[in-house]
Amino acid sequence: MATIKDSVHDHIEVTGPPEALLDTPAVQRLRRIRQLGTAQYVYPSANHTRFEHSLGVYHLASRAAKRLDLPERDAVHVEAAALLHDVGHGPFSHNIEALTHRRTGKYHDDVEELIASGQVGEVLRDNDLEPDRIARLIRGEGQYGQLVSGELDVDRMDYLVRDAHHTGVPYGTIDHERLIRELTFVDGELVLDEGNVQTAESLLLARALMNPTVYKHHVARISKAMLRRASERLLDADSGAAADVDAERLRRMDDHDLIVALRSTPETEAFSRRFDERRLLKRSVWAEWTDVPGWILDADHREIRRIERGIADAADVEPTDVIVDVPPEPSITESSSRVLVSGEMRRLDEQSPLVSALRTAQKGQWRLGVYTRRKLTDRVGRIAADEMDIDADGGLVTDIRTNVYHTLDEFEL
Amino acid sequence: MATIKDSVHDHIEVTGPPEALLDTPAVQRLRRIRQLGTAQYVYPSANHTRFEHSLGVYHLASRAAKRLDLPERDAVHVEAAALLHDVGHGPFSHNIEALTHRRTGKYHDDVEELIASGQVGEVLRDNDLEPDRIARLIRGEGQYGQLVSGELDVDRMDYLVRDAHHTGVPYGTIDHERLIRELTFVDGELVLDEGNVQTAESLLLARALMNPTVYKHHVARISKAMLRRASERLLDADSGAAADVDAERLRRMDDHDLIVALRSTPETEAFSRRFDERRLLKRSVWAEWTDVPGWILDADHREIRRIERGIADAADVEPTDVIVDVPPEPSITESSSRVLVSGEMRRLDEQSPLVSALRTAQKGQWRLGVYTRRKLTDRVGRIAADEMDIDADGGLVTDIRTNVYHTLDEFEL
Amino acid sequence: MATIKDSVHDHIEVTGPPEALLDTPAVQRLRRIRQLGTAQYVYPSANHTRFEHSLGVYHLASRAAKRLDLPERDAVHVEAAALLHDVGHGPFSHNIEALTHRRTGKYHDDVEELIASGQVGEVLRDNDLEPDRIARLIRGEGQYGQLVSGELDVDRMDYLVRDAHHTGVPYGTIDHERLIRELTFVDGELVLDEGNVQTAESLLLARALMNPTVYKHHVARISKAMLRRASERLLDADSGAAADVDAERLRRMDDHDLIVALRSTPETEAFSRRFDERRLLKRSVWAEWTDVPGWILDADHREIRRIERGIADAADVEPTDVIVDVPPEPSITESSSRVLVSGEMRRLDEQSPLVSALRTAQKGQWRLGVYTRRKLTDRVGRIAADEMDIDADGGLVTDIRTNVYHTLDEFEL
Amino acid sequence: MATIKDSVHDHIEVTGPPEALLDTPAVQRLRRIRQLGTAQYVYPSANHTRFEHSLGVYHLASRAAKRLDLPERDAVHVEAAALLHDVGHGPFSHNIEALTHRRTGKYHDDVEELIASGQVGEVLRDNDLEPDRIARLIRGEGQYGQLVSGELDVDRMDYLVRDAHHTGVPYGTIDHERLIRELTFVDGELVLDEGNVQTAESLLLARALMNPTVYKHHVARISKAMLRRASERLLDADSGAAADVDAERLRRMDDHDLIVALRSTPETEAFSRRFDERRLLKRSVWAEWTDVPGWILDADHREIRRIERGIADAADVEPTDVIVDVPPEPSITESSSRVLVSGEMRRLDEQSPLVSALRTAQKGQWRLGVYTRRKLTDRVGRIAADEMDIDADGGLVTDIRTNVYHTLDEFEL
Repeated sequence: MATIKDSVHDHIEVTGPPEALLDTPAVQRLRRIRQLGTAQYVYPSANHTRFEHSLGVYHLASRAAKRLDLPERDAVHVEAAALLHDVGHGPFSHNIEALTHRRTGKYHDDVEELIASGQVGEVLRDNDLEPDRIARLIRGEGQYGQLVSGELDVDRMDYLVRDAHHTGVPYGTIDHERLIRELTFVDGELVLDEGNVQTAESLLLARALMNPTVYKHHVARISKAMLRRASERLLDADSGAAADVDAERLRRMDDHDLIVALRSTPETEAFSRRFDERRLLKRSVWAEWTDVPGWILDADHREIRRIERGIADAADVEPTDVIVDVPPEPSITESSSRVLVSGEMRRLDEQSPLVSALRTAQKGQWRLGVYTRRKLTDRVGRIAADEMDIDADGGLVTDIRTNVYHTLDEFEL
Repeated sequence: MATIKDSVHDHIEVTGPPEALLDTPAVQRLRRIRQLGTAQYVYPSANHTRFEHSLGVYHLASRAAKRLDLPERDAVHVEAAALLHDVGHGPFSHNIEALTHRRTGKYHDDVEELIASGQVGEVLRDNDLEPDRIARLIRGEGQYGQLVSGELDVDRMDYLVRDAHHTGVPYGTIDHERLIRELTFVDGELVLDEGNVQTAESLLLARALMNPTVYKHHVARISKAMLRRASERLLDADSGAAADVDAERLRRMDDHDLIVALRSTPETEAFSRRFDERRLLKRSVWAEWTDVPGWILDADHREIRRIERGIADAADVEPTDVIVDVPPEPSITESSSRVLVSGEMRRLDEQSPLVSALRTAQKGQWRLGVYTRRKLTDRVGRIAADEMDIDADGGLVTDIRTNVYHTLDEFEL
Repeated sequence: MATIKDSVHDHIEVTGPPEALLDTPAVQRLRRIRQLGTAQYVYPSANHTRFEHSLGVYHLASRAAKRLDLPERDAVHVEAAALLHDVGHGPFSHNIEALTHRRTGKYHDDVEELIASGQVGEVLRDNDLEPDRIARLIRGEGQYGQLVSGELDVDRMDYLVRDAHHTGVPYGTIDHERLIRELTFVDGELVLDEGNVQTAESLLLARALMNPTVYKHHVARISKAMLRRASERLLDADSGAAADVDAERLRRMDDHDLIVALRSTPETEAFSRRFDERRLLKRSVWAEWTDVPGWILDADHREIRRIERGIADAADVEPTDVIVDVPPEPSITESSSRVLVSGEMRRLDEQSPLVSALRTAQKGQWRLGVYTRRKLTDRVGRIAADEMDIDADGGLVTDIRTNVYHTLDEFEL
Repeated sequence: MATIKDSVHDHIEVTGPPEALLDTPAVQRLRRIRQLGTAQYVYPSANHTRFEHSLGVYHLASRAAKRLDLPERDAVHVEAAALLHDVGHGPFSHNIEALTHRRTGKYHDDVEELIASGQVGEVLRDNDLEPDRIARLIRGEGQYGQLVSGELDVDRMDYLVRDAHHTGVPYGTIDHERLIRELTFVDGELVLDEGNVQTAESLLLARALMNPTVYKHHVARISKAMLRRASERLLDADSGAAADVDAERLRRMDDHDLIVALRSTPETEAFSRRFDERRLLKRSVWAEWTDVPGWILDADHREIRRIERGIADAADVEPTDVIVDVPPEPSITESSSRVLVSGEMRRLDEQSPLVSALRTAQKGQWRLGVYTRRKLTDRVGRIAADEMDIDADGGLVTDIRTNVYHTLDEFEL
């Protein structure tokens, strides 16, 4: 049995097949992938990795399996899935996932091949575990998949608390111990036991506050957008370190690889210097949902790139100096989490008036961003608003101040 | 200067007139009044007192005054008001306030006399401070009164964090430092600066989760109702320790006095034994807002007592064995807190869809309780539902389980 | 099963006979006895009680029993002993124990009668548990007694962390989880497993730092000495509330009882006002071990009282205005705790050079105090030093400043 | 003014020249250098960086300067020195410093050139600050240099607390706020004010416990030794990525650069795979101070390498499979920290018996290690003990178990 000291859950015991999985290259690689990608540009102490997060998720899965009294064989599959649930992540976690998905058709939880092959596959076979079943659990399929990836999964229980601990933002500090204790299965559905409407709401609210403050802080969004565009140029470059980087290889890099590849490829070198020195682009448009015409919301990646080029041409600036960032419509997945009320299983959004309010609130927080160099914000902003028919006040961009969700007077912005 | 170590704010510096106020009997008395009254029956570690809370409120007020750059004389009045804001509390804080208010016409913030007289009055006069002005600040009057008692006051910033620290329930862990940093005055109104809709919401949500989990947990409500009824009998008794206890004297007692007076008065001795041994009454009715007819919601104290006697008679039990507990309609005072949005001052309820959702949610959490001895719950419950025309399912009481907001399987209940 | 939320250990599960013991008056009484007696005069947030501490000790005992794989029947006796280990405490915990011991011959861990009788006795008999065995465990007798009261007991593991949490002084923050995990039995002795010299030292050092900072802070010592003397007067009084208080009754009081008895007895009323208002005596002598002649160190209680009267007479002040406080020689009980080193069981003081250094350091921290009213410190100090042949510098008292271990500029001193 | 959220100190305000320094490449580079190098192999959550540590040191320096009432110009130099004190660190902090020092003659605090040139130099000149003076402060020279690097410096106050927060090991949790408050200057020496012997001891003890548990944990030592040897091979290689890496360039790399350079250089590729997959060498000798002959303690780097080759030859294994790790004699720098006692300035080692005990204890913790592949530990161990005349029990290596200071049952060892 391995006992590992963790800053969030204190001592974590890893035993059985998961202990052997810990030693595999695929899991050890997670030590070199930051949990929150570029969020450390906003919260400098947020340098925690997918490795410790995976340990934490394993720990909570193991405790949940015990409390729910899962059969031995089911429990060990759930635990293995918890430990492995993030091995499919590329460098900087979600930051460049849109790109790798576009090029490979795979998301980070498409891990069938990864866990069936290599040392992970060996360990699983040696222990008579089924890679396919684990892959399905990771995608949230089946009754027990809800524990690993679902509205009440142990993944988010860990990351909320861990991100709060490492950023210093207290909003994520949920009562994860209580959540674990109240889980139960009813008719094959994972639900919170009687008297836990509040408990379910607390999970929802913690995410609702961490979202704009941490995960979607505009500096995190800008740096992420910059990194994604640079990685795209890396894939399309045919010189320097990138010469043999394709999307599959990119997906399997760690943070070290990607950063150094960007540095040593001529097409991305200038970017990487900006990135290393935190000279980030600035917002020139920051438009609310209601200001944005439908055709932009519907635009796909190719269309967005076309718009960017149009703006760059009209403003007479370098194409790399304009990024248009259109987030998808916000959703609240916890809304369908289930609680027992008077012995009856109910969806949280049927039970709690907060859910629909949060849905509205999230749409209110949605922003389309156009980013450019500091000196060009005014020029690019006017042109971009015009090009995209954004209904901006006085022909200008939306007042940026209204959307600074965290008052950190950032030193660079 | 006094430097005091606090479990929540670490080192607190008290200087100037507040330092002299610390030494007065009225402030030292707060050491013997528990902040959360009987909530320690649910959360055993919640034994913190109004004294340390008052120090914490002073600390935050002092920091806010500095950040808001208040004129010296205004700042010291605000600081004194913060330190003194709870000297009017009776034993067990809010627990018996409804009773003392009924008998004396005064709430805990009616402190004109208290702070104008005695050593507090002396200190104020010696330092050329105005007791009247401080009393008004404590009631939240005037521009600076908003800092002491208002939608964004330092009182709740302290108690949420402190109650979280001592109960172990994390929901109250707000970012008080950020709140203090973002306060500003606009046209004489205390508001949160640009970009703080989320910050304002976080305060609201922390209270919304602490309310059912801690402050209005049914065991806290039951023990509080029992204590209030026993204190009423104490006032009406004419024997034992209580012989000379009137409502004014009761208000000035500390927790020690009240407990011992209840023990040594024949009329309340049996109660005090139950109380000391945590043999609390149980819920026999626990009805939702929608089940309760309007005439009960409108009933005053006298009427409620009449109903109690009616139920006791009909059920043929002792009058002291039935307590009817009808809470007032819930309200969200933070809803009118103000934030700057695009340079314009807006009420939070205009800006955030969460406010009205919380209002609905709170009404959903409201419960009328009828409490009695464990053995009598069934009999008393049926009769009480009948007497009060409560629309209870199948002529019976509302299912209690749906309303246990905290799953502590309480050892006594 | 009862699940109780604790500010230190989060969720504590109480099950089996201990759950029934929780409901007994003897255990519920601990809710009304402050863990640190008068230490709240130094650390205002230190209002935690023996009740939550007892729950914590039960929790750690239960975990240790599980890890050590104790037989079911042994485990439940250990758990019961952990929960009951403090039921013998009088009001304000250790503060007046010297007095009650002198008058009754009993220490707080002499609990044979207490747990054999009343509801505790009933519960034990109903569950077929042996009160005598539990009493012996509480006194640290037998192999498993070491878990409850010994050099590596769960009692101090809980109180160090709990006192740190509630005072705000971080020194007590030990790694209790690791300590529990490393306990093992070798030849019937409780030892720490291989590689834990440091772990053992950390426990020792945490106490060595908490001692002068919290437990023996001079304000805690003064208020404790005052309370003890007042309680002695209460026992000797024959009027007021004290008329029928004897030492046995005193021992069974709670904090409320004692405070109110002191208030309502003419002989102690003046004291109780000082106490309530924190007008504590001050140090007039504060002498080091090396300055104090042997005959004082050897003096018994009667002799100390004679010295006090001598000083009071010579200084022409009230006898109650002089308290001579001679602490016993310091000892380090952890010094004999055992660790495995190279497969061999060794005493910590054989293994760690820190132990004898701490012994010397503690003697260096020892102080004899003579306390009196603020105005009399100079006069009483000179006379006391003279009467007791204390080798004080320049005929005057030892420089007080050298011994203020915590720099809190106390508001009253 | 920049306000930055930190997981340890909450909000940190950076203002004046330090705010401009934050934006320089030299400071931003610290974001990519882990504070504890390879310690994350023992404590997976220890991924914090020199950047946030530097911010923390700046924060404490700024608070200390304010409390000590430093003249404006002195204060800003101290603050700049605090923020810049670690810019000289190479990749993985101290891990390869012995190597870079041997090749360049410079330690991490030899920063004259670094801060006189580039953007840092520009910012300093623009703000009329003296690079030389800052460099001297960083090396602890002059009266105010003691604040930045000395026995009571703000550097260790930050790192103890920060390392505790991120590893989860509580021993480093000192009362830094109190330390800052008690600093004072007497005759140009930085001392702790009256009554702080304990405070000084607490700093000493925190380090004494963190040292073996975290900083010198054997897994941290092994991985560090491996990394240092691999980096040496990198410098001596003439192919792959390393072709143009000299010691000066190595010193200016960040963690990303070094890792990728090791991966892409044939001579170090095998090592980097072991490193990435945490297949670390194991201990084959682990000898105490008393077992080791003087000539080994006196051996320089060249001599140690000769011994390694001798062992490898005799054991017939690859030279890269043997690492001999001889740490320097331990020292306790805090021992000369000064405290005021009775108005007189005293060195802590004169005042506290703990200091010399800790000195002895540290010598007792010292270990010489010989590391090799798991399968070879027995063979290499016997030969190494023989070659080095180590007085090992029964011709074999010292019992490893006695020296595992942390019981984490490491999954890989």
